[in-house]
Amino acid sequence: MTEMVKVALEEVRQLSVRTLSRVGYSERHAVAIAEMLFQCQRDDCQSHGLFRLLMCHQTMKAGKVDGHATPQIYPSDGAIVRVDARNAMSLLAVNETMPLLIEKARKFGMAAMTVNKCFHFSALWPEVERLSEKGLAGLSMVPSHSWVAPAGGKRGVLGTNPLAFSWPRAGKDPFTFDFATSGFARGEIELYLRAGKPLPEGVAVDAEGNPTTDPQAALDGAMLTFGGYKGSALSIMIELMAGPLIDDLTSTESMAFAEGQGGAPYHGQIILAFDPYHLSGGRVAENDARAERLFADILNQGARLPSQRRFEARARNTARGYVEVPRALLEELMKLGG
Amino acid sequence: MTEMVKVALEEVRQLSVRTLSRVGYSERHAVAIAEMLFQCQRDDCQSHGLFRLLMCHQTMKAGKVDGHATPQIYPSDGAIVRVDARNAMSLLAVNETMPLLIEKARKFGMAAMTVNKCFHFSALWPEVERLSEKGLAGLSMVPSHSWVAPAGGKRGVLGTNPLAFSWPRAGKDPFTFDFATSGFARGEIELYLRAGKPLPEGVAVDAEGNPTTDPQAALDGAMLTFGGYKGSALSIMIELMAGPLIDDLTSTESMAFAEGQGGAPYHGQIILAFDPYHLSGGRVAENDARAERLFADILNQGARLPSQRRFEARARNTARGYVEVPRALLEELMKLGG
Repeated sequence: MTEMVKVALEEVRQLSVRTLSRVGYSERHAVAIAEMLFQCQRDDCQSHGLFRLLMCHQTMKAGKVDGHATPQIYPSDGAIVRVDARNAMSLLAVNETMPLLIEKARKFGMAAMTVNKCFHFSALWPEVERLSEKGLAGLSMVPSHSWVAPAGGKRGVLGTNPLAFSWPRAGKDPFTFDFATSGFARGEIELYLRAGKPLPEGVAVDAEGNPTTDPQAALDGAMLTFGGYKGSALSIMIELMAGPLIDDLTSTESMAFAEGQGGAPYHGQIILAFDPYHLSGGRVAENDARAERLFADILNQGARLPSQRRFEARARNTARGYVEVPRALLEELMKLGG
Repeated sequence: MTEMVKVALEEVRQLSVRTLSRVGYSERHAVAIAEMLFQCQRDDCQSHGLFRLLMCHQTMKAGKVDGHATPQIYPSDGAIVRVDARNAMSLLAVNETMPLLIEKARKFGMAAMTVNKCFHFSALWPEVERLSEKGLAGLSMVPSHSWVAPAGGKRGVLGTNPLAFSWPRAGKDPFTFDFATSGFARGEIELYLRAGKPLPEGVAVDAEGNPTTDPQAALDGAMLTFGGYKGSALSIMIELMAGPLIDDLTSTESMAFAEGQGGAPYHGQIILAFDPYHLSGGRVAENDARAERLFADILNQGARLPSQRRFEARARNTARGYVEVPRALLEELMKLGG
């Protein structure tokens, strides 16, 4: 049983800023990164909350990230706004460009932000939820490192390639999902290896492309996508949309760039925003009601909406003003001087 | 063994136009629909080729489709072009609006066509491939009828909700996929029922939401999406993007509208177009090469790209000038006076 410690919500933010500043990020970067960690920790996303301070540190130690770069925004007359993160973490670039993305989506009906040359470690849902808070639908994709084989293959070419979507719901938590298109998380395979347990069927192949449940054979081979050839096709789409489409690295190129160092992968990100006002010809209220009937039909049969558990955690932790964090993690963070 | 008959490619188009005219579609609609059937049949997509003439006939008999309506296009200053199909089949509306979609994508970097109030039976890949032929990436989604339960549910709420994507490849067939987010086709379940065969695991639930391999229990219950809760989330996104976002029916509303009649479902469609020139900051050639390296990494390990078999059929059938069609289907079409 992991021993948990209560940490006040405000301290989550401050601990993050202190640690990030100490390990080499400028104040602007530290504040932007800390906000993402805060949101994840507040929602009990342990994997993308304070835990990621270790990765931010590791990324800095690997020596390629710029902790002080100022993002360069390239606006256009059209529906696209491109931002160059200039080898920094993605979050400051996204924050600074988000108002322009929202403005363009409202003006043109839809718009895209492309983020280039960024190190990326974060969950995608906080960014698409910033769009749904403004009444827009948001969609975001990133590649990662090429651990995942295409359907019928045996070598990693694709990243874990997450897809996140958020839909605004008046007066309610949005409809949001954020999932990796890999069938399994890479870290999970390592946990199975350490525990000496076989993997579930269908999540990995060995170096010859044969299905395997042996964790070491899986690490020597490749992970698979969720959902067979359909999930594989979707993952390739994400690779294209968040790579070549926006002039940035594929997962294979990102892995080569890392040269075996740990830390966050380096690549691009695409965030799309859709304005229901334009797309529905101004009939937002009627269509909000229609979407609510859809959600009710899902909930009334005992199914859950994605992110429902996360929103419950958010409400609970916000009300009580603290989150629970593993003691071992806090002790590790203390060593970083946070 | 199904007995097949050779039909000249040009006759596929003419037979389609004759049949469609005979059963009540105006010449403009007949030509637009016939072109879609031709493209599918040319690629050996038996399920979406001449076979669909029967559904076009059935849709007309059901009495709600307008075989003569002129689509009404609502252009805007922004990146969205909306078209009202005015209760006709979708294809004429899409054809007439496609040039505007392409123009807007090139002007703004991305654009969307929303098609409202259409009957829809067609594959989505021919439309996204029209975008990739012009050097754009295309993405399209439609709802259908609510046969599919959400993950954890027991009643149909979602459609088979296909997703299609096409990416332009200079001098080559595009990278295209077009798949239903349901795990199985509804028609397939009926074939299993007739054959008295159990379904594969994981494609359906009974009326209580329990997994079932019994075809009748599946028909009384609901189909499932591919890929578990991730596929379910994706299907809900498609329901939202091609329904409430664009002021058109959900799969549940479409099923209610049909009042148990057969024929094509009635709903909306969204088609998104992305211009690599804008999104890559003008670096199209470098990024085309990058995408080609990705495809090579997939092919060189013995995996296939989606649609590869279809492109092989296209090349073969185009070269020899004919396709093979089941004799029984042709005989049925003769009865319609084609």
